[in-house]
Amino acid sequence: MLLNNIEEVKKNIKEWKKEGFKIGLVPTMGALHAGHLSLIKKAKASCDKVVVSVFVNPIQFGPSEDFDKYPRTLDADERLCNREGVDIVFAPSPKEMYGDAGRLSNDTLTYVCPPFFYVNKLCGKTRVGHFDGVCTVVLKLFNIVQPDYAFFGQKDAQQVVIVKKMAADLNVPVEIIQCPIVREESGLALSSRNKYLTDEGKKDALVLSKILNNIKTCYQKGITDVSALKETAYSFLTDKHELEYLEILDKNTLEEKLHADNNSIVLIACRVEGVRLIDNTYLGGI
Amino acid sequence: MLLNNIEEVKKNIKEWKKEGFKIGLVPTMGALHAGHLSLIKKAKASCDKVVVSVFVNPIQFGPSEDFDKYPRTLDADERLCNREGVDIVFAPSPKEMYGDAGRLSNDTLTYVCPPFFYVNKLCGKTRVGHFDGVCTVVLKLFNIVQPDYAFFGQKDAQQVVIVKKMAADLNVPVEIIQCPIVREESGLALSSRNKYLTDEGKKDALVLSKILNNIKTCYQKGITDVSALKETAYSFLTDKHELEYLEILDKNTLEEKLHADNNSIVLIACRVEGVRLIDNTYLGGI
Repeated sequence: MLLNNIEEVKKNIKEWKKEGFKIGLVPTMGALHAGHLSLIKKAKASCDKVVVSVFVNPIQFGPSEDFDKYPRTLDADERLCNREGVDIVFAPSPKEMYGDAGRLSNDTLTYVCPPFFYVNKLCGKTRVGHFDGVCTVVLKLFNIVQPDYAFFGQKDAQQVVIVKKMAADLNVPVEIIQCPIVREESGLALSSRNKYLTDEGKKDALVLSKILNNIKTCYQKGITDVSALKETAYSFLTDKHELEYLEILDKNTLEEKLHADNNSIVLIACRVEGVRLIDNTYLGGI
Repeated sequence: MLLNNIEEVKKNIKEWKKEGFKIGLVPTMGALHAGHLSLIKKAKASCDKVVVSVFVNPIQFGPSEDFDKYPRTLDADERLCNREGVDIVFAPSPKEMYGDAGRLSNDTLTYVCPPFFYVNKLCGKTRVGHFDGVCTVVLKLFNIVQPDYAFFGQKDAQQVVIVKKMAADLNVPVEIIQCPIVREESGLALSSRNKYLTDEGKKDALVLSKILNNIKTCYQKGITDVSALKETAYSFLTDKHELEYLEILDKNTLEEKLHADNNSIVLIACRVEGVRLIDNTYLGGI
């Protein structure tokens, strides 16, 4: 069932709560791919009712970012959700979510602001305000859908850490479930932004997963010095690659370390053909 | 029942939700007086279960404010709540609410930040960060108690407007109930901070309600010019009074106006004996 209206969603949720159903939420920006599909399947397997939200959230895009050209494929998204037995596809308009506030800003809207320590690094360093926008819309969706579980992909690693931190800090009664990255056979992490790439760009984009794999191999061979591990990346980069960051941090706290260990996560952001791509891998387990 | 522990509160709430009980929350900083009592009575009259939180919230006090000396009277508060048939008095420690975060700041904690337009005036002008702290703790309490209704006193008028705006902006599934100011026979609005005043100070403090009443009378006589209405205040002020603000604004949006109307609210903050007191009145109805 496709719904655009918050009140209609809430009416359904109220009925489900009365029945004692476990509710799962998969928040997405649409342009669904096999990565999203893995979240939806996990939600279906563990919940009685599943809501997939499809909303390209204006307040998490910077003024020079790709909000306008971000891929929108609602018909295909809805078909895919129906095939998976999703109960509600919630696809609100920006107006439905933020009202007639005109220019959306913290002058007129309440924002949920995750802590600077988690935000002022990695993607947050260049995407100023991005995680405020993410946490705000995620909390709104949580309040509308009131799910027992919400499913997030590990590909946006910083996002998952921040959403978990936000949920803990604000006592949000939703369990955050983190699901592994889905990759093409080539190793390329699935992303809605891969649609922007030419075939050649997709080949150049393999450098992200190659760098991560190489660092993991070096770590497993006994190299733990973070600088040394990071330096192994440079032999992979060509003039097709504009590296934005490569970091090895604590996977839960995003703290910097001198030496990598089994709690470390390696994170990379790199532009290929002007498209900003991100990827990450754990050195130990999840 | 006095509870200090979040998980214990949640356990009770879960049981109540199963039974379909309507839950009311009265968030307070303790030092309960007849103003709080009116909120509790209203909650008891309209809800099956009532939770009163008693928490002097460190993150809504500025570094030079009265956090340390704010009156704490938990035993008396608990007795009063028991007498009114309150089901849970929730009195957590700062550590229970904010963990071992050390210095509490937006470097390490997620904050809920209401819009600048509502914050950068009245009490928010001098109490920088105050309403971020208020909204953060209110949302935490909402998430812990998951009430159907939450009861706030009209005395903190800016707070009520901001909490309502926050609830609307973030789709918080809680109805905010606003309750009228309770006054001593003299006209003095009840406040936990009145305890700081000497008998003489209490007399000097009557100037707040006198100024408000006089403006209301002038308005009812046909004066609507905001500057003219505000000027009527100065004849009441002596060297015992340190006026912080006197404003006539739209009661819902806190917008400034040239002419008062039935949607206007008059708000005053004034120090007496160094104690910061606030009061307000509607020119029309609520």
